[in-house]
Amino acid sequence: MTNPFLQSGLFGTLFRDQTIAAEFGVDAFLARMCRFEVAWTRALEAAGQITRFEADAAVEVIAQSSWRDYSAASDKDGLPVPGLVASLREGRETRVASAIHTGATSQDVIDTAMVLTCLNVLDELEDRLATLVDRLETLLDASRDLPLMARTRMQAAVPATVGLRVSSWLRPLVDHQSRIQALRQDLAKVQVGGAVGKRDTPADHAELVAEHVAHALGLSLGPVWHTDRTSLVGFGHWLTLVSGSLGKIGQDIALMTQQGVDEIVLDGGGGSSAMPHKQNPVLAEAIVALSRFVAHQQGLLAQSMIHEQERSGSALALEWMTLPAMAEATGASLRHTDGLIASIKRIGSQQTA
Amino acid sequence: MTNPFLQSGLFGTLFRDQTIAAEFGVDAFLARMCRFEVAWTRALEAAGQITRFEADAAVEVIAQSSWRDYSAASDKDGLPVPGLVASLREGRETRVASAIHTGATSQDVIDTAMVLTCLNVLDELEDRLATLVDRLETLLDASRDLPLMARTRMQAAVPATVGLRVSSWLRPLVDHQSRIQALRQDLAKVQVGGAVGKRDTPADHAELVAEHVAHALGLSLGPVWHTDRTSLVGFGHWLTLVSGSLGKIGQDIALMTQQGVDEIVLDGGGGSSAMPHKQNPVLAEAIVALSRFVAHQQGLLAQSMIHEQERSGSALALEWMTLPAMAEATGASLRHTDGLIASIKRIGSQQTA
Amino acid sequence: MTNPFLQSGLFGTLFRDQTIAAEFGVDAFLARMCRFEVAWTRALEAAGQITRFEADAAVEVIAQSSWRDYSAASDKDGLPVPGLVASLREGRETRVASAIHTGATSQDVIDTAMVLTCLNVLDELEDRLATLVDRLETLLDASRDLPLMARTRMQAAVPATVGLRVSSWLRPLVDHQSRIQALRQDLAKVQVGGAVGKRDTPADHAELVAEHVAHALGLSLGPVWHTDRTSLVGFGHWLTLVSGSLGKIGQDIALMTQQGVDEIVLDGGGGSSAMPHKQNPVLAEAIVALSRFVAHQQGLLAQSMIHEQERSGSALALEWMTLPAMAEATGASLRHTDGLIASIKRIGSQQTA
Amino acid sequence: MTNPFLQSGLFGTLFRDQTIAAEFGVDAFLARMCRFEVAWTRALEAAGQITRFEADAAVEVIAQSSWRDYSAASDKDGLPVPGLVASLREGRETRVASAIHTGATSQDVIDTAMVLTCLNVLDELEDRLATLVDRLETLLDASRDLPLMARTRMQAAVPATVGLRVSSWLRPLVDHQSRIQALRQDLAKVQVGGAVGKRDTPADHAELVAEHVAHALGLSLGPVWHTDRTSLVGFGHWLTLVSGSLGKIGQDIALMTQQGVDEIVLDGGGGSSAMPHKQNPVLAEAIVALSRFVAHQQGLLAQSMIHEQERSGSALALEWMTLPAMAEATGASLRHTDGLIASIKRIGSQQTA
Repeated sequence: MTNPFLQSGLFGTLFRDQTIAAEFGVDAFLARMCRFEVAWTRALEAAGQITRFEADAAVEVIAQSSWRDYSAASDKDGLPVPGLVASLREGRETRVASAIHTGATSQDVIDTAMVLTCLNVLDELEDRLATLVDRLETLLDASRDLPLMARTRMQAAVPATVGLRVSSWLRPLVDHQSRIQALRQDLAKVQVGGAVGKRDTPADHAELVAEHVAHALGLSLGPVWHTDRTSLVGFGHWLTLVSGSLGKIGQDIALMTQQGVDEIVLDGGGGSSAMPHKQNPVLAEAIVALSRFVAHQQGLLAQSMIHEQERSGSALALEWMTLPAMAEATGASLRHTDGLIASIKRIGSQQTA
Repeated sequence: MTNPFLQSGLFGTLFRDQTIAAEFGVDAFLARMCRFEVAWTRALEAAGQITRFEADAAVEVIAQSSWRDYSAASDKDGLPVPGLVASLREGRETRVASAIHTGATSQDVIDTAMVLTCLNVLDELEDRLATLVDRLETLLDASRDLPLMARTRMQAAVPATVGLRVSSWLRPLVDHQSRIQALRQDLAKVQVGGAVGKRDTPADHAELVAEHVAHALGLSLGPVWHTDRTSLVGFGHWLTLVSGSLGKIGQDIALMTQQGVDEIVLDGGGGSSAMPHKQNPVLAEAIVALSRFVAHQQGLLAQSMIHEQERSGSALALEWMTLPAMAEATGASLRHTDGLIASIKRIGSQQTA
Repeated sequence: MTNPFLQSGLFGTLFRDQTIAAEFGVDAFLARMCRFEVAWTRALEAAGQITRFEADAAVEVIAQSSWRDYSAASDKDGLPVPGLVASLREGRETRVASAIHTGATSQDVIDTAMVLTCLNVLDELEDRLATLVDRLETLLDASRDLPLMARTRMQAAVPATVGLRVSSWLRPLVDHQSRIQALRQDLAKVQVGGAVGKRDTPADHAELVAEHVAHALGLSLGPVWHTDRTSLVGFGHWLTLVSGSLGKIGQDIALMTQQGVDEIVLDGGGGSSAMPHKQNPVLAEAIVALSRFVAHQQGLLAQSMIHEQERSGSALALEWMTLPAMAEATGASLRHTDGLIASIKRIGSQQTA
Repeated sequence: MTNPFLQSGLFGTLFRDQTIAAEFGVDAFLARMCRFEVAWTRALEAAGQITRFEADAAVEVIAQSSWRDYSAASDKDGLPVPGLVASLREGRETRVASAIHTGATSQDVIDTAMVLTCLNVLDELEDRLATLVDRLETLLDASRDLPLMARTRMQAAVPATVGLRVSSWLRPLVDHQSRIQALRQDLAKVQVGGAVGKRDTPADHAELVAEHVAHALGLSLGPVWHTDRTSLVGFGHWLTLVSGSLGKIGQDIALMTQQGVDEIVLDGGGGSSAMPHKQNPVLAEAIVALSRFVAHQQGLLAQSMIHEQERSGSALALEWMTLPAMAEATGASLRHTDGLIASIKRIGSQQTA
């Protein structure tokens, strides 16, 4: 759900990420919907359903489409595709209009555009994760043997090293990196099902058209997944793993900054309006909160699996309400964790002379 | 958390509410933070801490403050108040600068501004609820005795009337209305605690200042609630009750529209890009999804009760991540339910001649 | 949902509460279902529907009912009432059989028995809360002026006292106590709706019978609330408030026990199999986890508001899956917090000579 | 968390599964903890830390251990291992006592026993899933071409077949089957970390001992995962996928049973105490509720990733509170879905002559 407070700017970019947000924004998403429509038109042409001339004309129409406010149409239809298609077809001669979207359905467009979006987001998160892993490896190299009291169940346990702690931050992140390839493969499936998921249009050429669309968009073709939301819920799961492992780092660092514990010194913590001298571990606290947020949303996203009949507007809405917010929160958390690690001026137990 | 997808405009206003959003937006919220600062300055004057002249000068400074991008400061400090106060004081002579915010803390400002915001939101929701109650009463009057099959556990039970069903929609909403007064009283408490919640500044006049601020803002004065988030969690609870009861209406209407059941006819349902003839109960489905969303967020908002020590940045962030989104979702749901009820063209079991 | 691991005994009573559990157990719950049936029979008599003799005979049958395993019937019917009623009526002469349950419905029985259970649980929790409040007041009296560093956002802020911290533990609990009376009033409503919530049986005497049942059970009579789950969701909300405020205490104490912080010494913390010398704040950690558990379940319980048509088996099940577990967790948490406070041997910052 | 209501027997086995429950029960779990201890002792022997004689004596002691009530010890220690180890060592000569558990830690035992439990549960769920898949394939073969109205967004869309619907039930389940092998590999990792996760005891032989333990238990050896809960959260994710896909089946069937829709006839639905003629789709409703339950718990289980320092009692408790309940609910849901599909007497749109 939208949250006007966090996006107000009042909180800077603590709970936002403009790069990830832009991927779900109207320009990027509309462009991906149009990529689907272009691929569809070309697939109709390849299947001999329309002529080259009709296809060219339709593709030009789609290419020239620009953002219009589909609010009114979406309010009525529940999603922007019917309004988009109507605007593309509007005022065109019949055979050009018919070369657009015919045989596809709204969900094909929006699901495929969502997949393309998630893949782009995944690329960005993968880059940030790699940067963070590098930074943690550097930290590990520089501080591996410094003394640090190991603590279990909030109690000092036995003397250990910074290496033990930082390895416990690093290792799960490397593991999450190793899952990306399989995740991308799960995600990168075109949605082509038609009105009710039969994938039977155009008659006798449905599979050919679907293959063509998949190929044009760099996606694979599997069975229709209109009502099977496994891959998107799986993306959400990966986001919870990443943000969860970051949450551990944030929680650890927040605890290490405590006076009396004094196991870390950060550069540039946040001041207070009443106590300007303070060095609050603002990023660490934000990371913990973002982590709980992402984990929690997974519990709602997963309910989208209960997707009744051949299409559920309610279940789809649960995805739209959660997944973009989870992606943005994970992106923000990766950025913050990188900044937090970069700000470490000293780590390890204080040593007395 | 922000959700760039839902606010992209691609979904119109199905999952947004611009009126509620504006209450949490930068202009409204900043204005309320400034109202606190003005009240604080005047309270210092009333307590003899500053002169009338200093107070007038400070109030003028605050009044002239305009929106500036506090992103950089918020990124560092975790919230906008230190940046705001610094900008207000910047370049002023010391005694004017000292007449601003001295003795207050960021949390006092942001919690009080949040309370004022919630009260405004509650007013708006109360109005919408009243409108909806009126509409349901009209519907009840018009259709009370029309036949409707009562259904339990998804099965036809015994013949009943539309009155039975519509009463079950109306009655809980009236009950939720009756809870508003107590809720408003719980919410309408100023936050004045100072740096760590002691409420001990200015020395010897702390209670007087707090009373003055409360009075100026139309709020009551109770104990410091820095770490006791009961009232905000209680507001969230009321939002879940309202959106939950709307969810029942949405679910019922979605079921009533099914072919074969045919217990309701709506004006202007949503079309499909593949099946333009369809009349999808778009609003009903959105209401169900919004209801699950709000209910789910309450499970995270409630975790903000685990508010460690004298102030927890993580716990506060959980509130900021959930409550504004819950309020906006409830607002949207009230609007949609009203529109949905207004769109009823026929209700009740189809009667054969 | 059942959790065989926590009830295995492997974890002692850390995540269980046998007193609260017993209230939801078969003996207590069956007894309350039978109390409803007795009240119903007597109400039928009072309304002149059955004779004194028939009522006496029916009441004796109900009184003699003992626990039988209704599993098979519940597996088929979805709840135990049809099986119970069938067993009560089995082998009786028709007019005695008819004096049992006629005109009531399963949900009337189970909702009313649930209300009676919740009221008993509330009594028990109220007692525990009172004990805890007393203990905290004693602690406050004994240690109010001891020095304690106030900490905000995980950082030392300004020197303060134990009184500031302990007051922040105590005050919300007193507030939660003050909500009990209104909560009890909300909860204490008999459920009498009949098959589909019409409350129309027996004909011409339905309201009289309902009043009689309510009076016999010490409950009030309001409108049918078959599909309006506000009061049970409200009970869940109160449980989240209580366990949430306890969670703050647990989190604070866990942090205070840290070596380097050393602000509290507890008697009898838990040992480790590898480090028997340790004094782990086991209860404090359990309280935090119980608090997150209860808060989280509220997000699912609240979804029971989306209660379709005249009765939803799915929505009712969400209540049965969450509310008893939330009550037991809150009960355990109250017990643990009391034990934890009682175990304090020293509190406050360590003072150097 | 325990739920005394659902395990009371009042609801039969609708919300329970005794086979899965037994895997988490005291006998099975204690036996697995003892398997770890035996493997550990033998590993110490293999590493030359203890003699063959000492190992034999220790193993005999462990083998003869029987269930004792560790409640008191668990209440103090937070988990049953310290009590278990103390009882095993009690009254033994020092060198035998030292041959037990020395160098291991409680978490090694409990995590490894949990892994062994999850693997057994996974075997059982895999079997049930295979049975269900077979049954759905049979249903598909028998009814593929029967007519069924496809429905999207609660509205009749275009005529289709039972095959379209049943395929949408079957396909995701087959996909979930295909994920089991990788899941098992992720799960099947021994936990050997010692007091704080260093894996450094016995000195110079730690890796050898760990390998030996892993081999003896049929597990693989990877890095210590004391604070990295990815694999258990991943198991939870798989449970949400399975129960989520079952939830779709349950929701579809509940909708198909509606009078007016009449797309399915089930054998032996549940009766009502007021309306004994009814055929309520009790299993279908239970499956939907179980599905929401499991999905929701994942949102809390995932928070266990925020596992502070070298061991968090709070974070571990979140796992213990959720995962066993999720496994039991998924097991029950698989059983119910199988029963539900088996009970289909007719499927597809009613055909008029």
